[in-house]
Amino acid sequence: MEKITKAVLLFTALLLVATTSAFAAGAPAHNAAAIQTNLNYVWTILAAVLVFFMQAGFALLETGLTRSKNAVNIIMKNLMDVSAGGLVFFAVGFGLMFGASAGGWIGTDGFFLTDLHGQSTTWTWAFFLFQVVFAATAATIVSGAVAERTKFKGYLIFSLLMTAFIYPIFGSWAWGGLFNGGGWLGNLGFIDFAGSTVVHSVGGWASLAGAMVVGARVGKYDENGKPNHIAGHSLPLAALGVFILWFGWFGFNAGSTTAGTANIAGIALNTFLSAGAGATLSMFTTWIKDGKPDGPKTLNGVLAGLVAITAPCASIAPGSAILTGAVAGVLVVFAAEFIERHLVDDPVDAVAVHGVCGAWGTLAAGLFDIKEGLWGTQGFHPYIVGVQLLGIVAAFVWTFGTSYTLFTIIKKTVGLRVNGHLEGKGLDLHEHDNTAYPEFVDSDEFIPEEV
Amino acid sequence: MEKITKAVLLFTALLLVATTSAFAAGAPAHNAAAIQTNLNYVWTILAAVLVFFMQAGFALLETGLTRSKNAVNIIMKNLMDVSAGGLVFFAVGFGLMFGASAGGWIGTDGFFLTDLHGQSTTWTWAFFLFQVVFAATAATIVSGAVAERTKFKGYLIFSLLMTAFIYPIFGSWAWGGLFNGGGWLGNLGFIDFAGSTVVHSVGGWASLAGAMVVGARVGKYDENGKPNHIAGHSLPLAALGVFILWFGWFGFNAGSTTAGTANIAGIALNTFLSAGAGATLSMFTTWIKDGKPDGPKTLNGVLAGLVAITAPCASIAPGSAILTGAVAGVLVVFAAEFIERHLVDDPVDAVAVHGVCGAWGTLAAGLFDIKEGLWGTQGFHPYIVGVQLLGIVAAFVWTFGTSYTLFTIIKKTVGLRVNGHLEGKGLDLHEHDNTAYPEFVDSDEFIPEEV
Amino acid sequence: MEKITKAVLLFTALLLVATTSAFAAGAPAHNAAAIQTNLNYVWTILAAVLVFFMQAGFALLETGLTRSKNAVNIIMKNLMDVSAGGLVFFAVGFGLMFGASAGGWIGTDGFFLTDLHGQSTTWTWAFFLFQVVFAATAATIVSGAVAERTKFKGYLIFSLLMTAFIYPIFGSWAWGGLFNGGGWLGNLGFIDFAGSTVVHSVGGWASLAGAMVVGARVGKYDENGKPNHIAGHSLPLAALGVFILWFGWFGFNAGSTTAGTANIAGIALNTFLSAGAGATLSMFTTWIKDGKPDGPKTLNGVLAGLVAITAPCASIAPGSAILTGAVAGVLVVFAAEFIERHLVDDPVDAVAVHGVCGAWGTLAAGLFDIKEGLWGTQGFHPYIVGVQLLGIVAAFVWTFGTSYTLFTIIKKTVGLRVNGHLEGKGLDLHEHDNTAYPEFVDSDEFIPEEV
Repeated sequence: MEKITKAVLLFTALLLVATTSAFAAGAPAHNAAAIQTNLNYVWTILAAVLVFFMQAGFALLETGLTRSKNAVNIIMKNLMDVSAGGLVFFAVGFGLMFGASAGGWIGTDGFFLTDLHGQSTTWTWAFFLFQVVFAATAATIVSGAVAERTKFKGYLIFSLLMTAFIYPIFGSWAWGGLFNGGGWLGNLGFIDFAGSTVVHSVGGWASLAGAMVVGARVGKYDENGKPNHIAGHSLPLAALGVFILWFGWFGFNAGSTTAGTANIAGIALNTFLSAGAGATLSMFTTWIKDGKPDGPKTLNGVLAGLVAITAPCASIAPGSAILTGAVAGVLVVFAAEFIERHLVDDPVDAVAVHGVCGAWGTLAAGLFDIKEGLWGTQGFHPYIVGVQLLGIVAAFVWTFGTSYTLFTIIKKTVGLRVNGHLEGKGLDLHEHDNTAYPEFVDSDEFIPEEV
Repeated sequence: MEKITKAVLLFTALLLVATTSAFAAGAPAHNAAAIQTNLNYVWTILAAVLVFFMQAGFALLETGLTRSKNAVNIIMKNLMDVSAGGLVFFAVGFGLMFGASAGGWIGTDGFFLTDLHGQSTTWTWAFFLFQVVFAATAATIVSGAVAERTKFKGYLIFSLLMTAFIYPIFGSWAWGGLFNGGGWLGNLGFIDFAGSTVVHSVGGWASLAGAMVVGARVGKYDENGKPNHIAGHSLPLAALGVFILWFGWFGFNAGSTTAGTANIAGIALNTFLSAGAGATLSMFTTWIKDGKPDGPKTLNGVLAGLVAITAPCASIAPGSAILTGAVAGVLVVFAAEFIERHLVDDPVDAVAVHGVCGAWGTLAAGLFDIKEGLWGTQGFHPYIVGVQLLGIVAAFVWTFGTSYTLFTIIKKTVGLRVNGHLEGKGLDLHEHDNTAYPEFVDSDEFIPEEV
Repeated sequence: MEKITKAVLLFTALLLVATTSAFAAGAPAHNAAAIQTNLNYVWTILAAVLVFFMQAGFALLETGLTRSKNAVNIIMKNLMDVSAGGLVFFAVGFGLMFGASAGGWIGTDGFFLTDLHGQSTTWTWAFFLFQVVFAATAATIVSGAVAERTKFKGYLIFSLLMTAFIYPIFGSWAWGGLFNGGGWLGNLGFIDFAGSTVVHSVGGWASLAGAMVVGARVGKYDENGKPNHIAGHSLPLAALGVFILWFGWFGFNAGSTTAGTANIAGIALNTFLSAGAGATLSMFTTWIKDGKPDGPKTLNGVLAGLVAITAPCASIAPGSAILTGAVAGVLVVFAAEFIERHLVDDPVDAVAVHGVCGAWGTLAAGLFDIKEGLWGTQGFHPYIVGVQLLGIVAAFVWTFGTSYTLFTIIKKTVGLRVNGHLEGKGLDLHEHDNTAYPEFVDSDEFIPEEV
């Protein structure tokens, strides 16, 4: 605890040094270009606010899909991803991602929101607000995958380091160097408009690493390695989470224009259609495969469609958006099953939804590109598909590699896993001295026999 | 299931044909008219996003007002209304509603969002996004009225056909033919700015037909036909649903300008005041009538006020908006009781809220019209009230007629009603193999004795 | 009940007199200044809609932090604060707050939204919508502090009189007299951009008065006066409430520009950072102090940061915003404990969050002012800190004084407190004949022994 105290004090001291930048004066404008600028601010801030609200969506989704004895823990993780994570991205991550790029590999200024290369202070603030909620999204994806058995302190350290380093460094490859030459991946022509790869796959592959290092929940697999279904405690909360995510995703995708123009119509439309197709196809897939239309899997179908359309939303036709979402909706059902059987215990299927469907959407951005894709007017260019594949692989190698290493270091130092008995009692009691629903549930009833 | 598979394949094939439209290029503008256009896009898309979120409101409202054993089923219905329904409206409904009108009775182009008469592609996309969430609203109203005893497959078929045909054909009468002569009802001067009749009464009368054909829930009426109260399982979820609906309704009404102008102020204000008056008067009505201010009925009072103000929101004074909402708040209490006693089992009072208050609001648009209404400066014109009444009747005849027929056909073919024993167990188990709250409720406890 | 009926009838009659104002005609604009005006409407209305949604946040927060047997009661209070309260603010409060000021002490026109001094009707409507949701916020803060033991009727009377008189009269001192000389406090240079004092401290000090007059809940204090912890029934609902509040607060603070300009970027950024710092520091405070990072206290840390940044959000640097939120996050933990031990039973810590942190934020606006604050370029001016302190004291004296008097009068006339036995049964049954979760909870189980 003393180390934490010291770190907080140091952080505060740095802040004081960094807080003398002048507050911008904006005013109602009377010439056309200035009003377009004002409109861009209004649009970007409102989009950022919508993306911010996705944190509530993730919190509810993950809470609903897990057991009530871990609900407070999950909420605290999501809250810290955006709260403490926001401060860390302010101090370190934003500069690494969007600062003046060193050769396309890493940003080098803009830390503590000071002196970002070539941008006005006020616009930097708007742009930061939009980007910080993206960073929080990437981090919070992991929280579901390692839910119900991970120590809060270990998770918090990972989340902060992911927001400070893992996410922004990869992000700088695709989106960085805005004013001095761009990131190496972006310069190759990599299409990832709003982050199927940059945000979602990065979150998904970090989730995979985390779930592998922390191991499966007690009772998840029987002695033959066959997975047991551990049902979430509140599907209505999970469903509300999905609706909130869909709602916020309009800001995520259409806001990535950071300009209030007619472009937002097609992007928002593609976002809507892909999500709808993902839900519909996931539902029919479970109906045909298992005999009944399954609730939680259909909810994940919405997210699969949303994750997949995030890269191509600004550069494919509406029909292609439906196709992208439809494929994602089928894919997520089979990917989640495969991962559960053969790879890791991922309570919310974060790896399938964000990792796999993020990769699919990034590929779809190449395949269905309105100019260079399969039915584009200028013919199909394999080069663009190659670049998309390169970006997908780079995201996996960087993120899985660094995350696996970092989780392993945390495991061997401060510790990552609660012991089996405490896991049975639930993380809320052990990690937070709270119970989510003190009147409703006797948490002792839910301790698996084997603990 | 094979038929579904074939239908999905055909649908996908059609999509591929239809997906070569170019993605529009929009850019920051430097002349005033172009910036107003951009502002209209920003406003319309954000309003559409708010209306989209109303799906979450309906899902929570209907879930909260029914029993926990049917929660997943209700969520799935709401989710499919907007997901699969969105695809169907994209393919068929939007063209029937807004395509070039054949004599004011039906639209004839714009299917699969191609070639809508006289509109730019980009604006068509924005306009479609706004309209598709309206279509989903109309469909999803029905889901609550037939809750807790309807087969998922039968409901889904009705919902898709309603979104494809019943809703858009009536809609074309009032709002269609934008660029070639208008719909017949709109041409008479029918005032329904945002859809008290077009969306809400249509949803309400379809609800009435559905509830009549599917019949009452087991245990709803005793042997003398006296209704028993079946309480919803979570009033906090229902209340959150109502707050979300109110929140989204600002987009529903003020967004119906599809232009970012000063007009939105009065519309949003009227929406706020009418909802507040509806809630307040519903509360006092129950307090005076039954001795206590009732929670669920007050929540429905909010919706009554919102539904009623939807038609007149852009053409009556704020004081008239309060009066419109106040009358709706009283009306909904008595209408719901009457319907429960004498007509049908409607678990969420959808017929009273959307059908009856939608009709009242449409009438109020004529009575209180700022120019031609009771205290308008130009005197009262009975003609406008007559047109409003004609529209109310036309909506009832068309919607109730087609919906009753369609529900009856579904009942006699694929089936509409689950059997009594399965109804006792709950639709979640039978229709979806899910339970909404596996830790909290032993659903067997809630099977009525008579099953 | 007859008095209520008469009051409603009188109110309706007044409305009819007041409903002949013309509905404004706005149109897409073609010159730059007119488009900026349209953009201001879009921004202000959307911000108002976000602030409106905060009512849902308060309802969930207060519901989640109290026991399930009082959930419907709390929801009804929050709903009436904005519904009936909105009508009262329309009739009386808005005019007192923003009408032509009589010497800086009280507004004198604009009642029933007619003839507000010097404003266009349409802009008055937009401005009213933004302000009425602020008034509802101030009122609804009280609802949590007096939760679980207050009669609905007594609460409703207080809430309406607060919205009609207590809140707007103080508000007129700081924000009133827009077009004829300003309020006396505003004229001194008092900085309270979005209402740390005007809205939140006023709500907090009224909460303190209410909690003192109504007394502690049965079982809250043992015979030695030591407080017992009474846990809330649903932390996920409370957490969702906090996320919704944070989401809506972007509208609260950045919308207070009532103009769509670049200024909103810094305000939204400060709002985000302060909330994040509040949450982070509250968490570490409880972790260091009590050994575990506490869920509910961290949630209150978010609100502490938001309340504190509300005054200075438009006039301090981002680093200062982090510091403001950080101090609030620590302060709220200790203030809540102190108040619980030594002052009153405040189930949701409304006094600590809104009263104390509102005062702190108002002081911070003086300390960290970008021009005249501690590290401002123009040096530190003790005068501004003095004015801030004067405003803080004035808010306390006026609000606590009038609220204490009013609560006492209500207590001695219509009654304020339910009796102990009924309190044990829960307010939902007694005051509303409802139960929030009829399937889940047997409310008899939760009657304390001593009742």
